Amino acid sequence: MKIQHLAAIAIASLSISAAFAQAKPEDQIKYRQSAMTVTARSVGVLSAMAKGDLPFNKELAQRHASTIADLSDLPLTAGAYGPGTDKGAPTKADPKIWSEADKFKAAFDKFSTSARSLPAAAGDLNSLKTALADLGKTCKGCHDDYRMK
Amino acid sequence: MKIQHLAAIAIASLSISAAFAQAKPEDQIKYRQSAMTVTARSVGVLSAMAKGDLPFNKELAQRHASTIADLSDLPLTAGAYGPGTDKGAPTKADPKIWSEADKFKAAFDKFSTSARSLPAAAGDLNSLKTALADLGKTCKGCHDDYRMK
Repeated sequence: MKIQHLAAIAIASLSISAAFAQAKPEDQIKYRQSAMTVTARSVGVLSAMAKGDLPFNKELAQRHASTIADLSDLPLTAGAYGPGTDKGAPTKADPKIWSEADKFKAAFDKFSTSARSLPAAAGDLNSLKTALADLGKTCKGCHDDYRMK
Repeated sequence: MKIQHLAAIAIASLSISAAFAQAKPEDQIKYRQSAMTVTARSVGVLSAMAKGDLPFNKELAQRHASTIADLSDLPLTAGAYGPGTDKGAPTKADPKIWSEADKFKAAFDKFSTSARSLPAAAGDLNSLKTALADLGKTCKGCHDDYRMK
């Protein structure tokens, strides 16, 4: 994607995230948790294929990989971690999300980058296994620091 | 997509949905509501572009269109409307979902078909407006009959 396009998306995303960041904390919390719930299930389907618990099916794998990739940065770029959303509804969001905002963003970006490599990797079981292992590390990397027990 | 591939996806999906249908009602309810929450926000972004409340941005529009398309049939094909999931957690799922299962599936398919046309339409503001209006009818069509007030 051209740099001008990335810049345009970034600017548009800022407008959207600014608007969403004005949404009630419980709505922001609900949105980000919803994205994670949907993602978790798609990761589960791919993991089952990787482990052999489910027959590998290329179209289905690419479908779930695409789901994970699409959702991967939405919680952050949608502004669903706005100020004050460490409360307002049950949430495991660690306060470091806000006190270390740059590091949180870096961890999220690692996840999102890894997620975006999934659709191409999902065409083949072996490349899927490799991409999934990489994705898992990025999930863990963020959760270890930013999701409370 | 070749018919053999569609058949293979259908078979794989049945295995997955059978597995998920054994998940606790509250988990099925949570999954389908999560998919709807994420979808609603992406529809909101596209609607804002269609109304001119947000500048049209092709990549962002295609991103959100892709999100809607990917999620569109997952609640149903994932088996998240399994038997007994009219209860177990707060849900607006109408009992007709189970008493008129074929009609419910038909309504869901209409939505999913419309959703899948979104990514291509999202490249241009005028075609996006048209596709979005069509999508809205399918949302309403299902909600009128199968989502309680």
